[in-house]
Amino acid sequence: MATPQFSIYIHSGPNPWKVIIILEELGLSYRTITVDTKSGDQKKAPYTALNPNGRMPTLVDHSNNDFVVWESGAIILYLVEKYDAGADSKLAFAKFESNATAKQWLMFQMSGQGPYFGQAAWFKNFHAETIPSAIERYDKEIDRVLGVLNDVLTDKEYLVENRVSYADLSFVTWLIVLDWPTMGGGAWKSDERFSAVRAWYERLSERDSVKAMKEIKAAGKDGVFGVKA
Amino acid sequence: MATPQFSIYIHSGPNPWKVIIILEELGLSYRTITVDTKSGDQKKAPYTALNPNGRMPTLVDHSNNDFVVWESGAIILYLVEKYDAGADSKLAFAKFESNATAKQWLMFQMSGQGPYFGQAAWFKNFHAETIPSAIERYDKEIDRVLGVLNDVLTDKEYLVENRVSYADLSFVTWLIVLDWPTMGGGAWKSDERFSAVRAWYERLSERDSVKAMKEIKAAGKDGVFGVKA
Repeated sequence: MATPQFSIYIHSGPNPWKVIIILEELGLSYRTITVDTKSGDQKKAPYTALNPNGRMPTLVDHSNNDFVVWESGAIILYLVEKYDAGADSKLAFAKFESNATAKQWLMFQMSGQGPYFGQAAWFKNFHAETIPSAIERYDKEIDRVLGVLNDVLTDKEYLVENRVSYADLSFVTWLIVLDWPTMGGGAWKSDERFSAVRAWYERLSERDSVKAMKEIKAAGKDGVFGVKA
Repeated sequence: MATPQFSIYIHSGPNPWKVIIILEELGLSYRTITVDTKSGDQKKAPYTALNPNGRMPTLVDHSNNDFVVWESGAIILYLVEKYDAGADSKLAFAKFESNATAKQWLMFQMSGQGPYFGQAAWFKNFHAETIPSAIERYDKEIDRVLGVLNDVLTDKEYLVENRVSYADLSFVTWLIVLDWPTMGGGAWKSDERFSAVRAWYERLSERDSVKAMKEIKAAGKDGVFGVKA
């Protein structure tokens, strides 16, 4: 029986699902392994031997001596640079400078969108007390990040070379977080200031990879995906 | 008269100085341009034409058609992948997997250390009201990040291949922030839980690149650096 090339350790948060989109785009085969965060398994051995940061996702490449890499942004770079490089790259680019610009946007996703959207989610949903000034701080930051994206997407369809890349796709799962009732219930989509972001998000959401990611997440069961029969 | 290869737009925060360390390590020549944040110049043209995110640093490579790249992590990758690649790389590695691991740590710096240390600094120094539970949240996160680094550095001197790389050097300027009186005044250095991080930090601080960065920052004047007479 065919076995998948990768194992990916996941949980329900947005970051593992960013990587699932990339695996789906590249047609790679993988097994999902949900880490039991209610038991705190991400903070204990054996998981911390793979990932001392105690967060998800972590990728193991069984076709490369079980090479381990964590941090969603680093996993995405590993996948595209090892399995999608060169002149016919699907999610990266042949041109060095275009890849540098894609990494710039990935870094903006990793250091700007993820952490700030995450802090908004924290203070709205999980913090022990309600702190309006903290919520306001991070709501403003969400608007700021959306505004930066809207400016650059106003006259083009994608962030780099005007075709889709991992840079665009890396923003999708944290935009989905804005659908949570506590995170505005998707109200940003009817805000005229962000109309170019909405069009881009809809364009990305129509991709098979994003649809597959949503279906796997909704099913809520670990499994093996992308293995040809 | 010799002109520098790069222009780098900076301010007093930690992120531009991460890049200065890398420029110094690689012996590249650059002009610093301090953006007037008191006037909000980072949020206006002409700066936003270079960097729509309105943050610093931004790098312009005059030897590559004035190619522009921003986000400190992406600038570091641009510099090492364009000017320090191959078998004799000083700050990156010849081996693909080692570079993947270096990127993993750079992503941890960009998404973990920078944003969380930054939120601690915000709530301790700049937020309109004092919110003990927010400060406690980010103080704990600082300890958590230091703890992750300490675990991996307990039995080795550097993060990747046991020799210095851009991954190690990317953590230095945010560790310096912990010297601020409001950020603990460097108290972490006498905390036994973080003794391996302290030894690593001291090792990195002894490098000429880090010393040069500190001198340039202390002088507080824009200039041209690294141009041979």
